[in-house]
Amino acid sequence: MTTTPNWLDKRAYLTPHQEAIVLPDDTTYTFLDLQNDAKRLAKHFSNQGFQKGDHIALLSDNCYEFAVAVHALSYIGAVGCLLNTRLTKSELAFQLEDANVQGLIFQSKYENTALKLKEELEVLTVPLQIPHVEWLESDSELKLDNVSHILYTSGTTGNPKGVQLTYGNHYWNATASVLNLGLHSNDRWLLSLPMFHVGGLSILFKSVIYGMPVHLHERFDVDTIHHDIMNKGVTVMSVVALMVEELMKRLGDGQYPDTFRCFLLGGGPASQSLLEHCRDKNVPVFQSYGMTETASQFCTLDEDSMLSKIGSSGKALFPGQLKIVEEGQECSANEIGEIYVKGPTITPGYWNRTDANEDTFDHDWLKTGDLGYLDEDGYLFVVDRRKDLIISGGENVYPAQIESVLKGMNGIQDVGVVGVDDDKWGQVPAAFVVLNDAVSKGDIQAFAEANLAKYKVPKAYYFVDELPRNASKKIQRHKLLELLREENDA
Amino acid sequence: MTTTPNWLDKRAYLTPHQEAIVLPDDTTYTFLDLQNDAKRLAKHFSNQGFQKGDHIALLSDNCYEFAVAVHALSYIGAVGCLLNTRLTKSELAFQLEDANVQGLIFQSKYENTALKLKEELEVLTVPLQIPHVEWLESDSELKLDNVSHILYTSGTTGNPKGVQLTYGNHYWNATASVLNLGLHSNDRWLLSLPMFHVGGLSILFKSVIYGMPVHLHERFDVDTIHHDIMNKGVTVMSVVALMVEELMKRLGDGQYPDTFRCFLLGGGPASQSLLEHCRDKNVPVFQSYGMTETASQFCTLDEDSMLSKIGSSGKALFPGQLKIVEEGQECSANEIGEIYVKGPTITPGYWNRTDANEDTFDHDWLKTGDLGYLDEDGYLFVVDRRKDLIISGGENVYPAQIESVLKGMNGIQDVGVVGVDDDKWGQVPAAFVVLNDAVSKGDIQAFAEANLAKYKVPKAYYFVDELPRNASKKIQRHKLLELLREENDA
Repeated sequence: MTTTPNWLDKRAYLTPHQEAIVLPDDTTYTFLDLQNDAKRLAKHFSNQGFQKGDHIALLSDNCYEFAVAVHALSYIGAVGCLLNTRLTKSELAFQLEDANVQGLIFQSKYENTALKLKEELEVLTVPLQIPHVEWLESDSELKLDNVSHILYTSGTTGNPKGVQLTYGNHYWNATASVLNLGLHSNDRWLLSLPMFHVGGLSILFKSVIYGMPVHLHERFDVDTIHHDIMNKGVTVMSVVALMVEELMKRLGDGQYPDTFRCFLLGGGPASQSLLEHCRDKNVPVFQSYGMTETASQFCTLDEDSMLSKIGSSGKALFPGQLKIVEEGQECSANEIGEIYVKGPTITPGYWNRTDANEDTFDHDWLKTGDLGYLDEDGYLFVVDRRKDLIISGGENVYPAQIESVLKGMNGIQDVGVVGVDDDKWGQVPAAFVVLNDAVSKGDIQAFAEANLAKYKVPKAYYFVDELPRNASKKIQRHKLLELLREENDA
Repeated sequence: MTTTPNWLDKRAYLTPHQEAIVLPDDTTYTFLDLQNDAKRLAKHFSNQGFQKGDHIALLSDNCYEFAVAVHALSYIGAVGCLLNTRLTKSELAFQLEDANVQGLIFQSKYENTALKLKEELEVLTVPLQIPHVEWLESDSELKLDNVSHILYTSGTTGNPKGVQLTYGNHYWNATASVLNLGLHSNDRWLLSLPMFHVGGLSILFKSVIYGMPVHLHERFDVDTIHHDIMNKGVTVMSVVALMVEELMKRLGDGQYPDTFRCFLLGGGPASQSLLEHCRDKNVPVFQSYGMTETASQFCTLDEDSMLSKIGSSGKALFPGQLKIVEEGQECSANEIGEIYVKGPTITPGYWNRTDANEDTFDHDWLKTGDLGYLDEDGYLFVVDRRKDLIISGGENVYPAQIESVLKGMNGIQDVGVVGVDDDKWGQVPAAFVVLNDAVSKGDIQAFAEANLAKYKVPKAYYFVDELPRNASKKIQRHKLLELLREENDA
């Protein structure tokens, strides 16, 4: 089993005084500060009884302490279950229970939620605060096959699944990215994606593995981020399309400094017009393709092909393999099929889901469920996301979950959800509802808001007599989309 | 077991038209050319009967075809045993026999040697030429735990040992180096170290993993290399101290272009005066520490500490661990002890040498036999190379081997060899000889030249009545050095 030094210990040894994390107000933490705080927080966790191998949940928005906690959990050898703070209490409770967590660390603003979860699940709760205690004397090594995190992802059917990621997945991802983007001594990465998603989390690991400062933002605030890019030497920023759009508006007639290298674009494609606008502004945008199961970007379009291959997600990064499969056969160039991926950044499997693992893996290949093709030069074009997936402002929304929740409401007999285009969010969910009792749209809306994260709440409701279903009773979503077009044309 | 795509296949897919190898006469091969040639050579090897798992020796100086052969062997899954072309026939025969090779590939200038070896050992010999045949359809993956090469290294006692290196060792070494030196899209690495040593070989793998052009030189010719550095955008060059000395002389009052980033210095330390001269010329020199067993550099001094830590070999690169041990205990700062190293770049062991492996490994730690200390900031200072090791012009020379050869001459009863300082080569071997019959220095010299690679032939002989030996009859080399000083003072 491959072993490395604990990454933060090693980094604090190699470049102790290098900036690790810089906040928008210019508060700066070096790698030595980060190590110091992480070892103290680890000691505190250890005093609470958290142990090697425990599953510990973290409920927090982006903040310095989040980063400290991620490293502290690695010092005690616990597995971090990172929770999406936008989920409802019942969605959170499901994940805590499913992951069998021993503890829940919460940011103070989520105290109420944490206390309710504690009552319900009898889980040990610990506020996310760095205490004034001594350091934990910890194991100074990481075994790369060990699971470091469980991140939940929804699927086309059933409940969310916990994607296990190992230290090795993160390390290979970080080095694969370097082999694509290069590594400059002045690199600074802007992090405003949620760190409870793999896209944000992976930047933390890049920081410590590369010895690179991260400009850490709680959330995407276009003015603050514009200011950082213009004034603080940011070289790379991970984004979703919506962010690029807003930043380009904010930039107006201006120009980014020459030190700015690129936007690394994940979470669904950007429109051709946006990419062309960026090209005209001399702002490189590298479209990527990846998912939680691949520890973030798996394919990325290189700079040289940004313009000649607009719409492509590029090629699988150096250590990864990708193929297109249709009916068990590998497709030729330009033939559409399911995207299969393989390599050392791929999850070892879903937590406690033998069935899902059997469905998802074909030997060492992960079947993504996404459809795409490779063109004659081997560039990936994703033509359809995981069956039915709606990507709204960079968040993955699965119709099946919304349908399952709404069907739990009295008066609702059946529900079908589809994604509809939206100027701001890319896509938003819309629900077709079959009633068996008198219920108003307002009632449904209130019920949805109480039970679903905000970004999953449908933006429109349509009452229908029945849903189009095929012979095996699966909802025919393309027919729902046709209904929608008729509705809008009317 | 971690699996990646075959590196050359992947690179030729990612950046087919990028320059892979540039010769001094500007002949240029792209990664597509290299892949094409390697697949054809692999087909040729396969036609000769070379198979997966075979040990195949290569006897060649640096040339394009050498690089092609290294990749061709990876396509057929054979282990490359890279031979030092400066060895005598009997030294070569030992390695071929010890490694149990099935085939010997030879550069045309070594045809006579190859034919003699063929007679003696009945090994299949194949000239190193790229034939006009079709491609080999080969396995497109590499398993990183598989051994890719066996490189022989001498030790303090006994015969040379075959160091097994895996694909994983090379990959982790290449990525570790990136995390230290960074990676720029304009990087070009000058390779003039022998590719049959790990220092040269590792650059080939950097090239294909990074997608970086290598300026390949047959040997160190100061004028040709100076010309490349001044005119061809070379950014990094791996060197031994002797080369830096000659290049600085050649540079004279000139300046290297701004694009030149650094010399990466291996094979023993540079003098302080040389390092200071380089500093004055604004030429960064990164002292490193490594050996065949660590797949080349293991520690490297970073740019920021180049001046404040003159004489240090820096810190272990990101994935590696290093400790100083004396009598089984880890030393404190500034205490001298044996250097132990651990990490994913370390050899899985010597080929077919259970005893040496038992002596050399302490769990996963490799005992280097070198002495050194870590200063209070954790920087490594090597105070004494592997017991008795002489480093002459970057080549490792072990007294034990010279002694063993000379003792085989009629008239010689005993021999003790030490390294003496030399302005040109750093160190050269000198021999103390006890005779039991009348033999002249000229006779010994002739015998040595017939049986030892040129750089191992002693540069001076001293006749003595007996050798200083300790209670357990080990030669006391420090007493030989004292004798030498007396001799020189007289």
